[in-house]
Amino acid sequence: MFLRIDKLPVQLPASPQVDPIAAKNVQELLGGRFGEMSTLMNYTFQSFAMRGRDAIRPYYALISNIAAEEGGHIEIVSAAINSCLNGPRKDFDPAAAPTDAAWKSLPGGVFGGHYIASAQTALPVDSRGQGWTGDYVFSSGNLILDLLHNFFLENGARTQKLRVYEMTDNPAARTMLGYLFVRGGVHALAYAKALESLTGVEMSKMLPIPNIGNAVFPEARRFMEQGSHLKLYRFSPEDYREAGSIWSGTAPKAYVEGLGGGDQLEFVDAPPSGGDLAHLAGIASSFAPNYAPEEIFEIATKLYQKAKNL
Amino acid sequence: MFLRIDKLPVQLPASPQVDPIAAKNVQELLGGRFGEMSTLMNYTFQSFAMRGRDAIRPYYALISNIAAEEGGHIEIVSAAINSCLNGPRKDFDPAAAPTDAAWKSLPGGVFGGHYIASAQTALPVDSRGQGWTGDYVFSSGNLILDLLHNFFLENGARTQKLRVYEMTDNPAARTMLGYLFVRGGVHALAYAKALESLTGVEMSKMLPIPNIGNAVFPEARRFMEQGSHLKLYRFSPEDYREAGSIWSGTAPKAYVEGLGGGDQLEFVDAPPSGGDLAHLAGIASSFAPNYAPEEIFEIATKLYQKAKNL
Amino acid sequence: MFLRIDKLPVQLPASPQVDPIAAKNVQELLGGRFGEMSTLMNYTFQSFAMRGRDAIRPYYALISNIAAEEGGHIEIVSAAINSCLNGPRKDFDPAAAPTDAAWKSLPGGVFGGHYIASAQTALPVDSRGQGWTGDYVFSSGNLILDLLHNFFLENGARTQKLRVYEMTDNPAARTMLGYLFVRGGVHALAYAKALESLTGVEMSKMLPIPNIGNAVFPEARRFMEQGSHLKLYRFSPEDYREAGSIWSGTAPKAYVEGLGGGDQLEFVDAPPSGGDLAHLAGIASSFAPNYAPEEIFEIATKLYQKAKNL
Amino acid sequence: MFLRIDKLPVQLPASPQVDPIAAKNVQELLGGRFGEMSTLMNYTFQSFAMRGRDAIRPYYALISNIAAEEGGHIEIVSAAINSCLNGPRKDFDPAAAPTDAAWKSLPGGVFGGHYIASAQTALPVDSRGQGWTGDYVFSSGNLILDLLHNFFLENGARTQKLRVYEMTDNPAARTMLGYLFVRGGVHALAYAKALESLTGVEMSKMLPIPNIGNAVFPEARRFMEQGSHLKLYRFSPEDYREAGSIWSGTAPKAYVEGLGGGDQLEFVDAPPSGGDLAHLAGIASSFAPNYAPEEIFEIATKLYQKAKNL
Amino acid sequence: MFLRIDKLPVQLPASPQVDPIAAKNVQELLGGRFGEMSTLMNYTFQSFAMRGRDAIRPYYALISNIAAEEGGHIEIVSAAINSCLNGPRKDFDPAAAPTDAAWKSLPGGVFGGHYIASAQTALPVDSRGQGWTGDYVFSSGNLILDLLHNFFLENGARTQKLRVYEMTDNPAARTMLGYLFVRGGVHALAYAKALESLTGVEMSKMLPIPNIGNAVFPEARRFMEQGSHLKLYRFSPEDYREAGSIWSGTAPKAYVEGLGGGDQLEFVDAPPSGGDLAHLAGIASSFAPNYAPEEIFEIATKLYQKAKNL
Amino acid sequence: MFLRIDKLPVQLPASPQVDPIAAKNVQELLGGRFGEMSTLMNYTFQSFAMRGRDAIRPYYALISNIAAEEGGHIEIVSAAINSCLNGPRKDFDPAAAPTDAAWKSLPGGVFGGHYIASAQTALPVDSRGQGWTGDYVFSSGNLILDLLHNFFLENGARTQKLRVYEMTDNPAARTMLGYLFVRGGVHALAYAKALESLTGVEMSKMLPIPNIGNAVFPEARRFMEQGSHLKLYRFSPEDYREAGSIWSGTAPKAYVEGLGGGDQLEFVDAPPSGGDLAHLAGIASSFAPNYAPEEIFEIATKLYQKAKNL
Repeated sequence: MFLRIDKLPVQLPASPQVDPIAAKNVQELLGGRFGEMSTLMNYTFQSFAMRGRDAIRPYYALISNIAAEEGGHIEIVSAAINSCLNGPRKDFDPAAAPTDAAWKSLPGGVFGGHYIASAQTALPVDSRGQGWTGDYVFSSGNLILDLLHNFFLENGARTQKLRVYEMTDNPAARTMLGYLFVRGGVHALAYAKALESLTGVEMSKMLPIPNIGNAVFPEARRFMEQGSHLKLYRFSPEDYREAGSIWSGTAPKAYVEGLGGGDQLEFVDAPPSGGDLAHLAGIASSFAPNYAPEEIFEIATKLYQKAKNL
Repeated sequence: MFLRIDKLPVQLPASPQVDPIAAKNVQELLGGRFGEMSTLMNYTFQSFAMRGRDAIRPYYALISNIAAEEGGHIEIVSAAINSCLNGPRKDFDPAAAPTDAAWKSLPGGVFGGHYIASAQTALPVDSRGQGWTGDYVFSSGNLILDLLHNFFLENGARTQKLRVYEMTDNPAARTMLGYLFVRGGVHALAYAKALESLTGVEMSKMLPIPNIGNAVFPEARRFMEQGSHLKLYRFSPEDYREAGSIWSGTAPKAYVEGLGGGDQLEFVDAPPSGGDLAHLAGIASSFAPNYAPEEIFEIATKLYQKAKNL
Repeated sequence: MFLRIDKLPVQLPASPQVDPIAAKNVQELLGGRFGEMSTLMNYTFQSFAMRGRDAIRPYYALISNIAAEEGGHIEIVSAAINSCLNGPRKDFDPAAAPTDAAWKSLPGGVFGGHYIASAQTALPVDSRGQGWTGDYVFSSGNLILDLLHNFFLENGARTQKLRVYEMTDNPAARTMLGYLFVRGGVHALAYAKALESLTGVEMSKMLPIPNIGNAVFPEARRFMEQGSHLKLYRFSPEDYREAGSIWSGTAPKAYVEGLGGGDQLEFVDAPPSGGDLAHLAGIASSFAPNYAPEEIFEIATKLYQKAKNL
Repeated sequence: MFLRIDKLPVQLPASPQVDPIAAKNVQELLGGRFGEMSTLMNYTFQSFAMRGRDAIRPYYALISNIAAEEGGHIEIVSAAINSCLNGPRKDFDPAAAPTDAAWKSLPGGVFGGHYIASAQTALPVDSRGQGWTGDYVFSSGNLILDLLHNFFLENGARTQKLRVYEMTDNPAARTMLGYLFVRGGVHALAYAKALESLTGVEMSKMLPIPNIGNAVFPEARRFMEQGSHLKLYRFSPEDYREAGSIWSGTAPKAYVEGLGGGDQLEFVDAPPSGGDLAHLAGIASSFAPNYAPEEIFEIATKLYQKAKNL
Repeated sequence: MFLRIDKLPVQLPASPQVDPIAAKNVQELLGGRFGEMSTLMNYTFQSFAMRGRDAIRPYYALISNIAAEEGGHIEIVSAAINSCLNGPRKDFDPAAAPTDAAWKSLPGGVFGGHYIASAQTALPVDSRGQGWTGDYVFSSGNLILDLLHNFFLENGARTQKLRVYEMTDNPAARTMLGYLFVRGGVHALAYAKALESLTGVEMSKMLPIPNIGNAVFPEARRFMEQGSHLKLYRFSPEDYREAGSIWSGTAPKAYVEGLGGGDQLEFVDAPPSGGDLAHLAGIASSFAPNYAPEEIFEIATKLYQKAKNL
Repeated sequence: MFLRIDKLPVQLPASPQVDPIAAKNVQELLGGRFGEMSTLMNYTFQSFAMRGRDAIRPYYALISNIAAEEGGHIEIVSAAINSCLNGPRKDFDPAAAPTDAAWKSLPGGVFGGHYIASAQTALPVDSRGQGWTGDYVFSSGNLILDLLHNFFLENGARTQKLRVYEMTDNPAARTMLGYLFVRGGVHALAYAKALESLTGVEMSKMLPIPNIGNAVFPEARRFMEQGSHLKLYRFSPEDYREAGSIWSGTAPKAYVEGLGGGDQLEFVDAPPSGGDLAHLAGIASSFAPNYAPEEIFEIATKLYQKAKNL
């Protein structure tokens, strides 16, 4: 079972302007082969399918727990896309009248679905607009092979994130990217350490792939200075503590190079404190939550009062 | 963010025998257009995208909270598939030698991926073996339309579940189905009530679709006798309490007909207590967790000891 | 069986200029999940599959007859796309020499297939360029569920059409859209009335979704002033008269608000008179009907003479 | 625009028993690359897109008119599938109780969607269960190339139909196949003659592909003895008469070989008289039209009475 | 088995500037339905599947040998795309720092995968970015039908190439196109002659489709003046000589019109001499071959020295 | 450019009987995500795209050369499928008359396309019948990441091959599998050594994955006893010699364990001598090469005579 917390892993700045091209490119990191839907669902289904779970519980706990963290990652990538699609906007934004052609002059190459299917918000699709597919899930049941896959997946995902970073200077997108460079780095190292424990092959020596450190990027460095790259959080009220037996010891030298802090890996017995979800203003011209939402607001307010009194 | 609990919503009986045809058919309810991946991801992305959230918080809370419950539903459908693919099996099951052709006489029409891609475990695909796709997600941002979609989705999902029920008498599959008839019924009614509150149209009068009650099915009736059909659980440490303002009052007559209990809807301020996850025995011939797993077991045991001492 | 009439449902104005971006966006309404291919094929296959047809003939007639109307809708959406891709053009348009790079400066984000695969004409694909798929067809055989689906589908289609309207001021596209706002509104109301007759649930009270009336849009208002929103046409030489038993009575208040006319629904015992198909000029640089078509024209003329004399 | 006639092109015998494997194989001829959805939509979109229509009207009329005939072909293939999935069945068939597992012992390899998604009826998918896709439509705008495509498509479709014929002896399927061998043969010859008129290349000499005549097959021979292979029907109240200028003269020798009749091609100025649609009995266990349909029947009857009095 | 030669069929000029829109459009000719992946794989799988090979060896040899040539065609289309994506670039190009947003101002409508998935190089996808699919392969086993398909495929491919030519004046793209107009013309004529030999139908009279000769295009004319349009090369150390029995005699008049040379077809008993592969400079900001590649270069140099001494 | 040799890498025994279920399962190894189409096209496109080729030529040569070998692997997997679909068959096999329903009693769960689309021969599709897709190609341009991908791909492919081995005892399939266990093992080790040379991480210590040696399987052991596991062949008339600098030294201990031979890796300066292609008998009922092929045979014989005299 899963619980949900009404917070983002970290808070994102608002996009200073509407930026649908950045939004389109970031979709690759949500619904593409190497997007967060893939990391989430690969680890989730691997954990559902793990054979001999009791005998290999540290690995089960590691994969299950990272899967839970990835739930927050589809959320933060979606939040970054939403921010790019909006920019600052007052509530309730009348935008233009629907009889105007307010969206006629969108820049070439936007993803039409952001305007036609959704109300200028994220969808689980890639930068082509194609839906994420369950065919991206690899769950062989062979522990070594699944871990090798996951190590590759994290590095492939990192490479694509680095490239999307080069496609935008939008602060909402880049803050999300900086955070995920770091958290993805933790996951890559965690899978490397799991493989090392099982095979003796020093996979962590291969990192970082590509050979440019996260600390080069200010948006990532900020989180590293808070030690995020050394922490694996536990995303469960009671379970998955055994993951800490793999996430222990010290980080590889290349991983902490140039940072003033230490290299001791830390298993944190709680999720991060998180950041506030951005408010998405209503837009009349997108009919979201409706064209003339006053009645909806009124009904909801009454229910809300009722809820407060429950 | 999401947390994870190492339990199923309810415990499933073991399949009395290997039943790969049932497993294939149940895949439709996991990765098909009306499968649990769809309910999970529709509500999740709708909640990420909701505009004017503060003004319509009861609806936000309802959709977000049901999304969280659906996470447990992809888990329990996967567990049912895993059970069908295995039956009772001793650990560590040597099965046949890989040089034998142990799987030569599988019945016609099994899903090859259960044997070739996974180690006889569930994948996020439908009964054709095609991956679930993000194109199944509908998230228009218009609150009425999204709720109408969700109401339709739950009823479409119910219809397909009823039909898969007719395709198998496997107790693992049928227990899962009975449970989901009831929980899906709660979700359909919750969306009906949400629509009613907003439009005055009495959607709940349309239920059940098809016009056969859940209580006809023993595996569902068992959960109804525990009152499950009247309860909406809260799947969050602290959030989404406002959902209770929609899930309140009484159930429609057709919904409780023939059951001795009452009709008062109850918003339960916690998740269900849940049931134990089944153990999936290792299988040498599937190389899961490995062909000769002794070394893996030994390493894991040492790590486990270490974890206990953390 | 089907017959065909060499007319459009209504005549469209020519696009004043070439507008490939509008053409691309309008493709969503032809080959997308909520496009006219979907309405056409959902109702067509539901009618092929209807069980107990004789016992539920009014519903059979309604769905079959609307299916027939939808055939004209894929035609008019295609005509609007063709118009956007062309603008006024003289016949036989030499355009540029093929050795020029006449299409080098197309605006970013056009659908390549309009130039590479077709001769600047519509294809049954969506705004991503992906083919419409039969997976979009829902045909459960349960009458209530199929009608509920159709009601949802029409409202989803309306929402997407409204949004595409906001993306273009092209008169060919907008005339088509205005016409289909009205005709889609008729279909939504027809399915609402069908559901009401069967369940007593007043679905028509939910309309319009989103809560902005068609009469707001001048291109729709024009057809409403002719009463189109009150008429269901019969698209058959002899059959489907029973549909009139559902399309009867009065329209809901919100449906006719602000229009001077009455509210009596009318079942018209014939198709609309229709409008002329636009002429699509030949284009040498698209090799359509050929690069140097004179010989083809000559042969065709001879055959045509022969045909006239038949 | 399109009109619809509530008849099949020819009447089909009932399948003597339930035959879901035949139904699955026949799906290829409905929703596969060479299925009737493809012939229907290729010719339909080619006709929508034809440039210089007035100058090449005989070809326009030919393609448009054959497109209209293909509408009846998706209907008759669907009818054959429906027949295979049912066999003779009394109305209202209670089948088994839903709590039974009536469909547990379906033969291996049925298409699950026939039981889970539809109520044992046809869907626009191929024999893998994958939806027909608009990507199958070829509409280049070049008249020669489009006709060459259509000639190839008809022969590819014939080859696949011949092979499906070898996979079943079901009389519903075979009667449909025999009829479509003949009608597809007419279309192949029509496109051959169109190409001949334009290029002087004697394409009709290449027929039949494969080199086995339709008259070998009793189910086809029956229709040839009625002269169906010599007739092109006109599927329109008023239009497309010019197609007769191409469909004229005599049939090639190989085409009529071994048949007693003549070889004069005939353009028939009306659609065929057609055959009755089969009745599809309701099935309670498929919830079609509902589980307990009595109320639906009663409501429909009242509406029906009303309709009769209109 | 296959051997590989480290050369392109002909050498391509460098693109004078970065031209990602041309690159995107050219992708259709690599991974689209009518792209070179399709010609390669259609002929390859037809040759693997040919029944009665010994009895029909000239046809087997023809298809097998053309399949081998097509391997070089996916290479040259890829090379043209790579050239368009790069333009002249010095080695090792630092491009911009990854912390810059160097790719922020890409023109609208580029294919994101060229920047995110690959390092600005070709992928086996079409102009929508969708992967080439094996569903494009037609291999019926019927020799006439397969040859008819191949004849159609080559002409469809030619039409799309002509249109992409009109979309760009990039010399890398146009040189590739000119070359493939000619080689594709050879293949179309070869299949026409094969069909003629088997059926007596003069397919070559239908060429060229569309009715514009290759000699109109300077980039093609250049290769025709070298006689390339008259030559079928043999792509094998020892095999497929029998193909020469089909590729013999004279070319049709329309095929050589306006060219000074003769019309004698020539079967060349060797592959063409070919041209040098372009060098693709490393790009730091694409991390290709790495961000800081010096260590890789050093290691490779040592290995290279070692290889030279082998 | 590519050359082709009319031989298989090794000769396969005939399947003793028709075995369409084995054929279907083996399709996964041809057209699935981990099939030979994937290894072929991944390495091919990586080689087309390699940046800084001159500076990293040993890696370029290795990947290019293995790509060339993979061409023979799609051929041998196809040959195994063809063998399974046929068994021994006399030429020209009349099979049954097409009016019979010879294929009515095929076992449940065959791949329909083997009978409907092809003449009982292989297609580039997976075990679901879905076409291989170019989306399976990973070509990031980062050398380490591409090599890591390839190492993972080879091990994933091995795991799936081992499992298909357990699904059949067909000697054609198993001989192919034994051969590819060995050759895939060579490729996995080659990529491991390439990664080791670049990163110092001893990837080869991780092999074999799963931890069961190839020598356990008699069909693989046979080729290992001939030393195949120690040899990397050169598949080019003149090029790619530099690959030998990576494929040198000794094999890991686990790789040669239990085999009497040595452990010296050998770079063989030629392709393997190969084995004869099986003859695929014609089948009248599949119309391959035609229904009544005598005329085709006669024409081909005349051409063949002519070819001999060239």
